[in-house]
Amino acid sequence: MRFELDRERFVDTMREQAEIGATDGGGLHRLALSDADKAVRDWFCEQLEAAGLAVRIDAFGNVFGRREGRTDSEPVLVGSHLDSQPYGGIYDGAMGVVAALEFVRELNDRDVETERPIEIVNWTNEEGSRFQPAMQGSGVWAGAHDIEAEYAKTDDEGKTVREELERIGYLGEEPAEPREAYDSYLELHIEQGPYLEENDKDVGVVTGVVGFAWGAITYYGEADHSGPTPMHHRQDALVAAADVISEVRRIPSSLGDRTVGTVGYIDAKPNSINIIPGEVTLTFGFRDPKREVIDEAVARVLLEAETAAEHEGVDWEWESRMDVDPVAFADRTVDAVDAAAAELGYDAMRMMSGAGHDATHANSVCDTAMVFAVSEDGRSHNEAEYTSWDDCYTAANTLAAAARRLADDEF
Amino acid sequence: MRFELDRERFVDTMREQAEIGATDGGGLHRLALSDADKAVRDWFCEQLEAAGLAVRIDAFGNVFGRREGRTDSEPVLVGSHLDSQPYGGIYDGAMGVVAALEFVRELNDRDVETERPIEIVNWTNEEGSRFQPAMQGSGVWAGAHDIEAEYAKTDDEGKTVREELERIGYLGEEPAEPREAYDSYLELHIEQGPYLEENDKDVGVVTGVVGFAWGAITYYGEADHSGPTPMHHRQDALVAAADVISEVRRIPSSLGDRTVGTVGYIDAKPNSINIIPGEVTLTFGFRDPKREVIDEAVARVLLEAETAAEHEGVDWEWESRMDVDPVAFADRTVDAVDAAAAELGYDAMRMMSGAGHDATHANSVCDTAMVFAVSEDGRSHNEAEYTSWDDCYTAANTLAAAARRLADDEF
Repeated sequence: MRFELDRERFVDTMREQAEIGATDGGGLHRLALSDADKAVRDWFCEQLEAAGLAVRIDAFGNVFGRREGRTDSEPVLVGSHLDSQPYGGIYDGAMGVVAALEFVRELNDRDVETERPIEIVNWTNEEGSRFQPAMQGSGVWAGAHDIEAEYAKTDDEGKTVREELERIGYLGEEPAEPREAYDSYLELHIEQGPYLEENDKDVGVVTGVVGFAWGAITYYGEADHSGPTPMHHRQDALVAAADVISEVRRIPSSLGDRTVGTVGYIDAKPNSINIIPGEVTLTFGFRDPKREVIDEAVARVLLEAETAAEHEGVDWEWESRMDVDPVAFADRTVDAVDAAAAELGYDAMRMMSGAGHDATHANSVCDTAMVFAVSEDGRSHNEAEYTSWDDCYTAANTLAAAARRLADDEF
Repeated sequence: MRFELDRERFVDTMREQAEIGATDGGGLHRLALSDADKAVRDWFCEQLEAAGLAVRIDAFGNVFGRREGRTDSEPVLVGSHLDSQPYGGIYDGAMGVVAALEFVRELNDRDVETERPIEIVNWTNEEGSRFQPAMQGSGVWAGAHDIEAEYAKTDDEGKTVREELERIGYLGEEPAEPREAYDSYLELHIEQGPYLEENDKDVGVVTGVVGFAWGAITYYGEADHSGPTPMHHRQDALVAAADVISEVRRIPSSLGDRTVGTVGYIDAKPNSINIIPGEVTLTFGFRDPKREVIDEAVARVLLEAETAAEHEGVDWEWESRMDVDPVAFADRTVDAVDAAAAELGYDAMRMMSGAGHDATHANSVCDTAMVFAVSEDGRSHNEAEYTSWDDCYTAANTLAAAARRLADDEF
């Protein structure tokens, strides 16, 4: 059976979700547990019910829709997330949920009954921009995080996750954990990198996720007046921070061709044109497919941080913010995706994901794999993020065909 | 006549003013035109009246107290400012006003009539932290700024200077301009630098103020996801900014022993641990006694900014934020301060001021000079700012003796 989605409806549904929290720049501003997130969740629940699915909301706001199978064997779970980065794009996350929804609609239209039940899911707060950490909902569900600790996390205004879940009406009653064993989890996502485009491929078969380490360094100098303080009297926290930023840019080049390093965040105090920065916090992050490469990158940045502190005569400290081992997906689920792409005649490429996804947590619960859609120029996390409808459709079909195979025990 | 102030009363008055807007950390939080500023102004006006001075408030809130002389020739003006930095120290500004007040009290106690009238002044908003620019009141008074433009300046909450002057009752009726020609202006201030302490001097005789140039550089890169974007695909605005920060730290060392350069402000967008910074604005500031050194420093930082942009493949622009020529005070007034210190047996040092002061503006109206008090460790603009009472008293006596000489035409 050649299993393809209804292209026009798939594109319409993508456009429909993109109106909720739309920005003037053509992107999305749909932060986790915001009013826009509530609106898109309400819309999603309506679609689930209209498609005849049984809707469950768990205690961390993860939304599930279930389509029964011929048997009540372990279900196939398919989904992603509807929250977005601040002024992010319309594909990141949402396309995986839309593809899952269109998969179920297609089964309904074709009147296909699958062997296993199918569940589709929208995970709470994948992005981690309003509340940290990222992939919070899937992490709680998979048992990687304690729910009470995650409830207590606050945004910049001091609002807690729990308060906000309650406010938008998504503090559900179902325990936030797998309520039964699952057969498998599949997730479609945009690549967010340039490899598919550079290799002229139609779709990506994701074999695992690179690991990463995030940390924050804080320098403590002296916040003196910028005029009368001679250079040799200064303890400038920002000068030390600049050395670290430059070093983070350099470190990957001597470690591996897939190693990346980023300083994404910096906060200087008092941050006044006329005062020497007395305190600066900056973050660093490194990713690589190999654990030992990540450890080496972190060791090097901390060595530079210490050297910079000595040069500038400032105090410093650091803390780890997150540390995730590389993940390898199960052969069975990866092969299912590969076979689906082949059956549809797509030119697919096996690859590691450079970013963490909800699939990383799901992988600890059941066999998992991902489908990557081509990202134009590798852009994401901003309004310029773009994937052509052809590439979106290719990836969605690959997901649907793979999920159908798994649901019918063809892998 | 050996002219010295009443030490105990001087210290008491310093302590009295320091109670108004006092912080738990032993400093002052007395932002321009705040309730605390109103309270200290009310206190100051009471002191002026109690000392028999005629009080005038001008249309920009500058407060003057006049003590008549034997003649109505051009007055000697003495003063500084009572507003503070956010969580600043108790000496910056306030000591110059207290010393002026104690000078007049001392004349009263000794029943001394001076040849020239003496006026003492508290300038509005010297600090420039709540409303920009700094030295706003003296700048309007000296004709450097248009009063309507300065009235319209807003704080972070959108309140205007004019609204706030009116609210606290200091929108006076007197035109904000010199109402007659002045003989001279003297101002006592803490050094805010380490030179007096390093050279083991009692007091500073300020011969002028270094010039400065402030600018802001903005880099425009690509705000991509920090994971899947390979290093060679990145256009990281923060990496370019780091090169500029390092260069600003280096430039002064090759230009002059009094050159300073500072990056005090940085703002990265979107400022998220997981996103490559797409836009970064940072400021730079250089100061030096010589105009040509300042120009060379700016030329070098812009060259580095261009090089950094090319290395990282980002766009950039810059704008000048402020540019002030070095100021040289008149020999007559500087000599008066020098002679006063000598007459009192103090070991004085001639020096340029590294920071702008109200004296910079007053200098365009009449002959001007400044007295610097020792700053422990050069600290200022924070609660740890400290000058011993001995050093405060030495500087206040120097100011008073110099002002008395000028008021009696001894210079």
